[in-house]
Amino acid sequence: MAPDPSRRPHGVVPPLVTPLDEHGDVDRASLERLVSFQLDAGVDGLFVGGSSGEIALLDTAQRRAAIEVVAGTAAKAVPVLAGAIDTGTRRVVEHARQAAELGADAVVVTAPFYVRPGTAEIVDHFRHVHTAVDVPVVAYDIPSAVHVPLTPDIVAQLAAEELVVALKDSSGDLAAFREILRSTDLPALTGSELFADTAVQVGASGIVPGLGNVDPHGYVRLHRAARNGDHRAAAEEQERLARLFRIISVADRSRIGFTAGALGAFKAALAVRGVIANPATNLPLRRLDDEEKQEIAALLDEAGLGRVEAG
Amino acid sequence: MAPDPSRRPHGVVPPLVTPLDEHGDVDRASLERLVSFQLDAGVDGLFVGGSSGEIALLDTAQRRAAIEVVAGTAAKAVPVLAGAIDTGTRRVVEHARQAAELGADAVVVTAPFYVRPGTAEIVDHFRHVHTAVDVPVVAYDIPSAVHVPLTPDIVAQLAAEELVVALKDSSGDLAAFREILRSTDLPALTGSELFADTAVQVGASGIVPGLGNVDPHGYVRLHRAARNGDHRAAAEEQERLARLFRIISVADRSRIGFTAGALGAFKAALAVRGVIANPATNLPLRRLDDEEKQEIAALLDEAGLGRVEAG
Amino acid sequence: MAPDPSRRPHGVVPPLVTPLDEHGDVDRASLERLVSFQLDAGVDGLFVGGSSGEIALLDTAQRRAAIEVVAGTAAKAVPVLAGAIDTGTRRVVEHARQAAELGADAVVVTAPFYVRPGTAEIVDHFRHVHTAVDVPVVAYDIPSAVHVPLTPDIVAQLAAEELVVALKDSSGDLAAFREILRSTDLPALTGSELFADTAVQVGASGIVPGLGNVDPHGYVRLHRAARNGDHRAAAEEQERLARLFRIISVADRSRIGFTAGALGAFKAALAVRGVIANPATNLPLRRLDDEEKQEIAALLDEAGLGRVEAG
Amino acid sequence: MAPDPSRRPHGVVPPLVTPLDEHGDVDRASLERLVSFQLDAGVDGLFVGGSSGEIALLDTAQRRAAIEVVAGTAAKAVPVLAGAIDTGTRRVVEHARQAAELGADAVVVTAPFYVRPGTAEIVDHFRHVHTAVDVPVVAYDIPSAVHVPLTPDIVAQLAAEELVVALKDSSGDLAAFREILRSTDLPALTGSELFADTAVQVGASGIVPGLGNVDPHGYVRLHRAARNGDHRAAAEEQERLARLFRIISVADRSRIGFTAGALGAFKAALAVRGVIANPATNLPLRRLDDEEKQEIAALLDEAGLGRVEAG
Repeated sequence: MAPDPSRRPHGVVPPLVTPLDEHGDVDRASLERLVSFQLDAGVDGLFVGGSSGEIALLDTAQRRAAIEVVAGTAAKAVPVLAGAIDTGTRRVVEHARQAAELGADAVVVTAPFYVRPGTAEIVDHFRHVHTAVDVPVVAYDIPSAVHVPLTPDIVAQLAAEELVVALKDSSGDLAAFREILRSTDLPALTGSELFADTAVQVGASGIVPGLGNVDPHGYVRLHRAARNGDHRAAAEEQERLARLFRIISVADRSRIGFTAGALGAFKAALAVRGVIANPATNLPLRRLDDEEKQEIAALLDEAGLGRVEAG
Repeated sequence: MAPDPSRRPHGVVPPLVTPLDEHGDVDRASLERLVSFQLDAGVDGLFVGGSSGEIALLDTAQRRAAIEVVAGTAAKAVPVLAGAIDTGTRRVVEHARQAAELGADAVVVTAPFYVRPGTAEIVDHFRHVHTAVDVPVVAYDIPSAVHVPLTPDIVAQLAAEELVVALKDSSGDLAAFREILRSTDLPALTGSELFADTAVQVGASGIVPGLGNVDPHGYVRLHRAARNGDHRAAAEEQERLARLFRIISVADRSRIGFTAGALGAFKAALAVRGVIANPATNLPLRRLDDEEKQEIAALLDEAGLGRVEAG
Repeated sequence: MAPDPSRRPHGVVPPLVTPLDEHGDVDRASLERLVSFQLDAGVDGLFVGGSSGEIALLDTAQRRAAIEVVAGTAAKAVPVLAGAIDTGTRRVVEHARQAAELGADAVVVTAPFYVRPGTAEIVDHFRHVHTAVDVPVVAYDIPSAVHVPLTPDIVAQLAAEELVVALKDSSGDLAAFREILRSTDLPALTGSELFADTAVQVGASGIVPGLGNVDPHGYVRLHRAARNGDHRAAAEEQERLARLFRIISVADRSRIGFTAGALGAFKAALAVRGVIANPATNLPLRRLDDEEKQEIAALLDEAGLGRVEAG
Repeated sequence: MAPDPSRRPHGVVPPLVTPLDEHGDVDRASLERLVSFQLDAGVDGLFVGGSSGEIALLDTAQRRAAIEVVAGTAAKAVPVLAGAIDTGTRRVVEHARQAAELGADAVVVTAPFYVRPGTAEIVDHFRHVHTAVDVPVVAYDIPSAVHVPLTPDIVAQLAAEELVVALKDSSGDLAAFREILRSTDLPALTGSELFADTAVQVGASGIVPGLGNVDPHGYVRLHRAARNGDHRAAAEEQERLARLFRIISVADRSRIGFTAGALGAFKAALAVRGVIANPATNLPLRRLDDEEKQEIAALLDEAGLGRVEAG
């Protein structure tokens, strides 16, 4: 399908966390506030059910609720991308159709995982999903999670057959990312919190920073500066955000894992800022303790980020 | 819960493939024949929806159909294990409850994946699943698929708290497996096709060989010999099966991936033997070609395996 | 020791290949020409016996000859760095002392490898080398070769104790590189051929591109533009060099390995340009074939690189 | 060359540690005692300068001294293998020739490392070494150290061309090891401390256990039992040795690395037993502390291992 170009993912597209209430259900009021907070900051799109949204930990009801709230609150003001992230093609199609019904403008899809596909099978996967669903597909390269890279060759083929409308690159390999920008016309967004300025300067069409949950205004400023060729301003904003990003290293890694440490920090920061009510992450992730939350509050202070006033 | 010990997984428990028809739906008649073939050979249990069952590629309807057919056909003659394999705790609980309703006697559960959990979070995962479901849980260590190992320390804790009734080890690390046998009372089954004899000799309570789909009689003989201390007979059977296992290397790996090559070979062999109708694997896996199927037929011949007569 | 700051590695410091003659000995005349070619192009330093110099494949006589020729030809015009790259501390000290005697201004040292050291032991390694040798030490992070990263924490400690005068980063992880630039005063050079412009813009004190063997003029222009804040000119030069860098992918990887493909391509290109006589790499690396060499010649043409006139 | 078959490595061949004195030089008296201790226990060969001998950390003088002492003390009573382990072909040839001059009966050689060779280049490496040295070559597969596996295909080619007289397998992958035993006539020894019984039972021609430094009598008993088909006795000995092997996990891994923890434990145990004078490991490895040494002494007690009386 040929989507309206203005609906293509571009610019600043934060991958939203999924706030939970004390029963573990999606906290709809908090998620609505988070969406409003992002729109007020001027983001260009919203990504619900990504890695930062704990997609792999959401059950069916949680996933439906999250997409419904985000699509409803965004109300077509900006495009809403929804993760359709699962191990195999048929499962992905199930998720993608559900997301489209719930109002998503596009779905974000990784290579199959758990299984070990060959290169041609990865392309086939995207071919099947493209055919089976009615919304555009964004390819998502995140080898730290799926352990199968979307190589430049695979991306080139996805682009050549127009199976996807964009790439979200969370590979951490900027040289490969730049090679993709060099060799295809496919719009490509980076998931890097730390190289957002550079990525835009070398041609990325957008940024999808998890830390954007916490400081969307910062990333909007960074993106604008980078797009306008103001390297110095972009780099300064990037430096400030890089220092803020240290919140993901606060958690004691002997006690809780990498995912809980990073996503728990985003949620704790949003709770400190008053955007969401409860910093809880989903089962089986463990919680930050009070000392860790205070350290995060201190890093927010350093970055000049205070409590958000009701919009 | 305290399961009837005779229902604990033990002995030869093949991880069944999931036959598909030409529309991609579960081929119920073929799956019934496969179950009967296994029961006739004298297996001690059946594992539906494991890695060999393409669990990661099955959609909801396929998964339900597979469990239903296997539990129905087995009719309590042997315990039926069902994979409840997914990325997060809540998703696993959804699968596990469904499997129990459909008649599974136990569920098989891995560590969370896609996310990167810490050690304590992995134990919490099993704690939550244990509490939430009414059938026993078998822990499944398969780092090649989930990229998170169940270390001897984790297994020791699962055993100490009786969160699981057995371990299925597909790590390929026999030294670690033996350390688990040495340091806990937990029954442990190996997924190795190639070290089944040794595993039983060092104390494994059972074997779960994917190749058992194709030659259950061989693994039943091997298991009996190994259990009775007849090392020579067990080793000879193992050698024959190791040569047969070369069917998984027949596929041209530049064309199709590892999973398609291995599971496609099991299915092709079962089709040659007349047990299932169609060797197709699930989307997006590619098919073996005719030359590859003929090579598999030749390896079956060499192993003395012919067409199976109707039971 | 407190080296003369002007002798610290900075700017463009190509890691020289080691030309060999038809007997496998160092081709001194070709190496002299290569050094002159680099100096004429305006490089700021020379690195002999690095990964591009096949250090791991040189025997004692070859290593001595290479350092001797480079130090002799450079004649103190620019600083000469020599790799003292080996598996353990005592071996590294042997190499480093020899290099210093032969005229090297500094030595380049990795973490120990083959063994699996702990973090504190890696710092100890640099502490011992620092004490034992009379020339400054440059820390070299190249996890693709040594499989042990120099983490930002290790680098911070090396900097705090002044055990090294600079870092050469060939990790490919620009986010970690930038974190090092952010958190220490240590001069840091990147080994990246593809992100040289960006690295300089975010604060790298120099670049060490293997491809600089082939096109030192290009990297000198790139470095000057990046240093002067002319992002557009730097990026354009980078794009041209990125296309040229495809010479390392010309070799058929089913026939020869990664190292032979990359270093063989540098040497083949230098032979085409008339700088060195013979493109041979050291045992046991295989050679590019004629078709591959022609493809490299074509890529040189595209990049506007012709035969080099005698200086 | 066609070596005397009785000189081929076989049976129990401990990879000797390299005792050091307080100045860091090879402690010749301790090494002589270690050799005598091993010979008294009835070992079938000695391996000097292997991974357990800290080969990667020895400088030229240390390496020469170690080989000289072992060859001299063994006095042809059993074959002496010497590691010729280095990153490239020419370096390996240098080591191998030196070892042969010093009295080694065979040299042990890995794939090249640091560089990234292709499959054919690895075979070429062994072809060159075979041609260049006058003693037989043993291929050494240790991917944890060299990060390049000797695959069954490579080993098959080494065997077919008679480039090596044996394989030492320290891959930890018993399925691949067994495939090699199944498909070639090449004698193969395992480096596994924990699966020595099984390895012999499936056809290994010998065992090279680092823990054999500490308890050669145990491994000699295990080997004899396994060879004679007394599986129960072999397994019991293996169990006792597996418990003893826990000495390598005593060290606090946040303080010292894996290599120091394992080799330091072997040396500490030998010091407790009175075989060597000093448990020091080579630079830059850190030492076990007193508490750790006492824990090792306790594990020796549990294993029934006391002080060794002078031979």
